[in-house]
Amino acid sequence: MSSNVFYTLQKSSYLDTRLQSYAKSDYYPFHMPGHKRASLEFPNPYTVDITEIEGFDNLHHAEGILREAQARAAEVYNAKKTFYLINGSTSGILSAISAALPKRGTLLMSRNSHKAAYHAAYLRELETIYLLPLMTEFGISGSVPPSHVEQALNDFPQVGCVFITSPTYDGVVSDIQAIADIVHARNIPLIVDEAHGAHFTFSKEFPSSALACGADLVIQSLHKSLPCLTQTALLHVNSSRVDLDLLKRFLGIYQTSSPSYLLMASMEQCIRLMKEEGITRMNDFTRLLRHFYKKTADLSHLQIFNKFSCSPDACFDQDMSKILISVGSTGLTGKELYDLLLQKYHLQMEMSSGHYVTALSSMMDTEAGFQRLLFALEEIDRKYFLPEPDREHTLFTSDMIYQIPKPGMSISQAIEQHTEILSLKASTGHISQEYIYLYPPGIPLVAPGEIMTGKLLGTIAQCQKQGLSVEGLSDMAGSRIKVVKM
Amino acid sequence: MSSNVFYTLQKSSYLDTRLQSYAKSDYYPFHMPGHKRASLEFPNPYTVDITEIEGFDNLHHAEGILREAQARAAEVYNAKKTFYLINGSTSGILSAISAALPKRGTLLMSRNSHKAAYHAAYLRELETIYLLPLMTEFGISGSVPPSHVEQALNDFPQVGCVFITSPTYDGVVSDIQAIADIVHARNIPLIVDEAHGAHFTFSKEFPSSALACGADLVIQSLHKSLPCLTQTALLHVNSSRVDLDLLKRFLGIYQTSSPSYLLMASMEQCIRLMKEEGITRMNDFTRLLRHFYKKTADLSHLQIFNKFSCSPDACFDQDMSKILISVGSTGLTGKELYDLLLQKYHLQMEMSSGHYVTALSSMMDTEAGFQRLLFALEEIDRKYFLPEPDREHTLFTSDMIYQIPKPGMSISQAIEQHTEILSLKASTGHISQEYIYLYPPGIPLVAPGEIMTGKLLGTIAQCQKQGLSVEGLSDMAGSRIKVVKM
Repeated sequence: MSSNVFYTLQKSSYLDTRLQSYAKSDYYPFHMPGHKRASLEFPNPYTVDITEIEGFDNLHHAEGILREAQARAAEVYNAKKTFYLINGSTSGILSAISAALPKRGTLLMSRNSHKAAYHAAYLRELETIYLLPLMTEFGISGSVPPSHVEQALNDFPQVGCVFITSPTYDGVVSDIQAIADIVHARNIPLIVDEAHGAHFTFSKEFPSSALACGADLVIQSLHKSLPCLTQTALLHVNSSRVDLDLLKRFLGIYQTSSPSYLLMASMEQCIRLMKEEGITRMNDFTRLLRHFYKKTADLSHLQIFNKFSCSPDACFDQDMSKILISVGSTGLTGKELYDLLLQKYHLQMEMSSGHYVTALSSMMDTEAGFQRLLFALEEIDRKYFLPEPDREHTLFTSDMIYQIPKPGMSISQAIEQHTEILSLKASTGHISQEYIYLYPPGIPLVAPGEIMTGKLLGTIAQCQKQGLSVEGLSDMAGSRIKVVKM
Repeated sequence: MSSNVFYTLQKSSYLDTRLQSYAKSDYYPFHMPGHKRASLEFPNPYTVDITEIEGFDNLHHAEGILREAQARAAEVYNAKKTFYLINGSTSGILSAISAALPKRGTLLMSRNSHKAAYHAAYLRELETIYLLPLMTEFGISGSVPPSHVEQALNDFPQVGCVFITSPTYDGVVSDIQAIADIVHARNIPLIVDEAHGAHFTFSKEFPSSALACGADLVIQSLHKSLPCLTQTALLHVNSSRVDLDLLKRFLGIYQTSSPSYLLMASMEQCIRLMKEEGITRMNDFTRLLRHFYKKTADLSHLQIFNKFSCSPDACFDQDMSKILISVGSTGLTGKELYDLLLQKYHLQMEMSSGHYVTALSSMMDTEAGFQRLLFALEEIDRKYFLPEPDREHTLFTSDMIYQIPKPGMSISQAIEQHTEILSLKASTGHISQEYIYLYPPGIPLVAPGEIMTGKLLGTIAQCQKQGLSVEGLSDMAGSRIKVVKM
């Protein structure tokens, strides 16, 4: 029955009709976007989708209603200046890094950054130096310790800008306040990718926003955790350490010259809602969350990620709205748990990995939604368990495997060279042209420009043997790699 | 009364509410987007706005419904392969140029290209060589003659790719077939920015599409001339002259990692509509257009742009859906005509320039809409005229003023240098860091990297004296310019 519904859904052959079938189904969304498909009041999109006509300003040279709308966003977030982004946080990350450093400058970045940060380094021919986040006991990337930032700035005085991702996709937050102090002591800017933390400002139960912690540029996706249409984001400017004209230049380069008024209207609506009702709604939401975490603490086999089970260094703080459910001692894999929740309970998770699934929640979730999830987890917890706890799934999470390979050249130098495709075995000593990811934690084992070593190949082989998801290799079998032709 | 309505409209202080007021008003849209705010069947946008969950594929690695949707678009346009773009034609132009040339390669481009082409040259450090379109008697940029392409390829054998804009914003089309033959004789790719020509395929009354003429990569905005949401576009691949993996890499760089399913659903809907009803609807539309052009040929003072009043070299072909209305001998300026149409007749034009206004029409326009425009033009034509025809407005359009300045360095070299701000007068001999545009025709008088000359300054002064719109200078007064610090 349940699978029949899903089968029917899959059968709609056109995207628009399949989306409408999904909207009418009873599948509950524990995934982005943060509006959770609620029918927020909105007219037929075609009726309000216009272009830069009289009275409607121009996003790239805002002087009227779009200047005011962006000023309202800045006010709600207490930023010096705020830009609407209609090409997602991607365009904010590209623009922020491009403006903060001269061409061929040096960027100190957390290794678990969004690919847009790597792309900015590529486009701007930056030298990249990496901060490796600590590993948590849960098997996900943890925080970047401020002391590591300090050490890296001592070791590499040429660094012109620091880029940190906080919170991560898993909800792990770093100590941005302490990092900002260290970075500002060198009088260079700190950019924080807070794509997953646009809701922090509205409740003390969430970590402090990077804006309040003193980061210079902060990028937030509105659609990820707030009620706003997908592809919308904000770039906040908090200081004068990055030239505003340069920032505008790059925003004009990486974003379409025909910005969608639909996306912008949704941003306006979202910001107004948050201004008027944000605090109240977040109160209700965090009450639901607290209840959920309290109840799931009693589960016998499934385990919910909680910062209190990590060392404070490995997890400085946590965004509780991202609910990470480990298979624990159920004997299930992450994918099996994900499929079970989807097919039997019609609960669509955000994602599954080797040993856990992620449920993303927002203030638009309902009490009934949380109850459905709780009911499902309790039932699964009763039905699935191993005679003896199996801890093998955490083996690979040791930070032993993460040692950043030695760079042979910059990302852009490597990518622009001629390519040779080798078997992994034959690649020792060669310079990679690819990113090879282990997912999770979503950190590149190797990035373009880095030298392949026997140790790295051993790690990759070990991960593949364990059935972990090694992504990015140039063939589906994961046995060949693009390297710089020598 | 009419101005009161407009005044009230302007007073809505929030973007979303102002858009809804505008939707309810009686203002008729002779502007983009091409759906003309028709209430095409579409659900509440929040209910169908999702992320990459089960069954809904991933635009950046399409293997399911999005691969099929893009294949349907390719089929409708008879392309080898088609990519959905959710960051507008901008992202298609950036990606196409980035993939077609190696870094620091040489691009032969029409001087009246969209700024995204200049941005691609900047990001990829390209050497740029320009094709100057001919000037039409109407005072707008005309076609790029194939013989000029041939000559440039002889003069600059290092050219690795040719980029042409056709149709222009004004609807002027170049002989893409002949240009493609010339370009392919060198075995290099031809990219055509056909952002304003996504409707060509569906009627023989419009010029042939660049795809049918053999261009290798073709970029089309769906929202500009077809019923689709703003910010949607297609990148068609027509040959194997550009590496597909490289193209995908750059599409993944310049576009958000959170593509809007709303925009993609609209593209699916648009493509299906065009497949099923495109030819019939275009037939009805071109019938209305022909009637309109026939009736307006009788106007005494206003003049409608028509290719038959130009030499075939200057205007190889024309997109009749872009209606250019010259003030002719009415004594009005373009802005006055625009304001009159807006305030008295509630007809919102696409834009006004010194001596004409543009009405963009599409197959979504109604007979009543065309009648309103015809009625307004006939009334204006009766009321406004000069005792003697004034031809001064065409003075500046002589191609005498357009001589591309000598390059001192590439766009990227110039922009990355230290800046000095000089008065225009003092800038002779310096290398510009800015684009200075004369609008229309929207061709840079000077681009970054080009050397300021006394002749150029004379042209700028003359244009400013005539009250023409000289844009891009670093101050509002138009008297200062950013140059490379020497």
